[in-house]
Amino acid sequence: MRIDVLTLFPAMLDGFLSESMLGRAQEAKLLEIKVHNLRDWATDKHRTTDDRPFGGGAGMVLKCEPVFAAIEQVQTPGCRRIYLTPDGTPLSPALALELSQQLHLVLLSGHYEGIDQRIREKIIDQEISIGDYVLTNGTLAAAVVIDALARFIPGVLGEEKSLTTESFTSKLLDFPQYTRPAVYRGMSVPEVLLSGNHGEIEKWRHAQQVEKTQSVRPDLLK
Amino acid sequence: MRIDVLTLFPAMLDGFLSESMLGRAQEAKLLEIKVHNLRDWATDKHRTTDDRPFGGGAGMVLKCEPVFAAIEQVQTPGCRRIYLTPDGTPLSPALALELSQQLHLVLLSGHYEGIDQRIREKIIDQEISIGDYVLTNGTLAAAVVIDALARFIPGVLGEEKSLTTESFTSKLLDFPQYTRPAVYRGMSVPEVLLSGNHGEIEKWRHAQQVEKTQSVRPDLLK
Repeated sequence: MRIDVLTLFPAMLDGFLSESMLGRAQEAKLLEIKVHNLRDWATDKHRTTDDRPFGGGAGMVLKCEPVFAAIEQVQTPGCRRIYLTPDGTPLSPALALELSQQLHLVLLSGHYEGIDQRIREKIIDQEISIGDYVLTNGTLAAAVVIDALARFIPGVLGEEKSLTTESFTSKLLDFPQYTRPAVYRGMSVPEVLLSGNHGEIEKWRHAQQVEKTQSVRPDLLK
Repeated sequence: MRIDVLTLFPAMLDGFLSESMLGRAQEAKLLEIKVHNLRDWATDKHRTTDDRPFGGGAGMVLKCEPVFAAIEQVQTPGCRRIYLTPDGTPLSPALALELSQQLHLVLLSGHYEGIDQRIREKIIDQEISIGDYVLTNGTLAAAVVIDALARFIPGVLGEEKSLTTESFTSKLLDFPQYTRPAVYRGMSVPEVLLSGNHGEIEKWRHAQQVEKTQSVRPDLLK
């Protein structure tokens, strides 16, 4: 799978792309990620990529010309061109799974007040939000989308770790986990987990999931 | 404001912390961010930080000892100790604003299947989620929280940019933006934006916000 990221701050992703799971996934050729600086497609000597909004208002708007040129250069037939924006479709495990099955993604990170609407209408296939809050720019959002989808690419998660017992795959939050020592500073692990009785452990874990979801995120149960 | 990040992958944040707004904010002493490797608090020669879960199951669980030791070393009286986890309270602009008013935050990034529940119960003040999806580890989530809150620290956003016209501050998504040229590849900017009539522009923008929110995120209007 290939991913091209278009951003004004390519260096923001340096550490993220070389560390941990994504570094290994790229070494193993499971994933090829290229980060591009949108300024490389600016045509004037100041490498201008933004301008003031029509109709007034604070802030600056990303211009059509460099973004159209950048996307037209990196896109391939059938690729999906995605714009990261707080007013997009919320990222979910189902969406991450679907994205992980694509051959080629182009991720456009916005900045300033936003981007010229004609980019969104003409050359973007999907708009995605990572959450209901505002970031300084979309580069971190691109990183979050890449991390969430990479986990679904076979071979990327080094461990034999099952994806099925995690928060959200069942609409319930995860159960509490404990590891050694069985007593730490006077705090004991729940007895059932030491019992070896797998039926009872399953029952206890499920009850904990329901209780936690009801208390922290009742909206997930609706 | 001071922020300590505790993670197993400190290098993931290298680019993020030195680039763009956060680099400038740290240079201007508006923000002091320290990233710590949890392995520095492991006590055995293999620097072990995780172990198998009691009660069985795939994956590994972050152990009590290094995390208690790390938090006890970096915490200060009155600081807020936060664990990033998909089953926490969802990050929102209101929460980001509140976090930006703290003097000291400690951000703990999880990994593996999760962390020992005794950490969450004893030494964590708040659990925060950046969205309903699963990441390989909480380091990116810490970056997202830092980016979202830093924007509310006076002086961090270099521009005179108003925070009040953004998505979510009004429960409505943002309006479409346009900048020069007025016609690009045959696509024209909506005439009202070129009219100079500010009353009409306000009305048009508000109508666009309502329409977009109804279409993309009707849940925000409930």
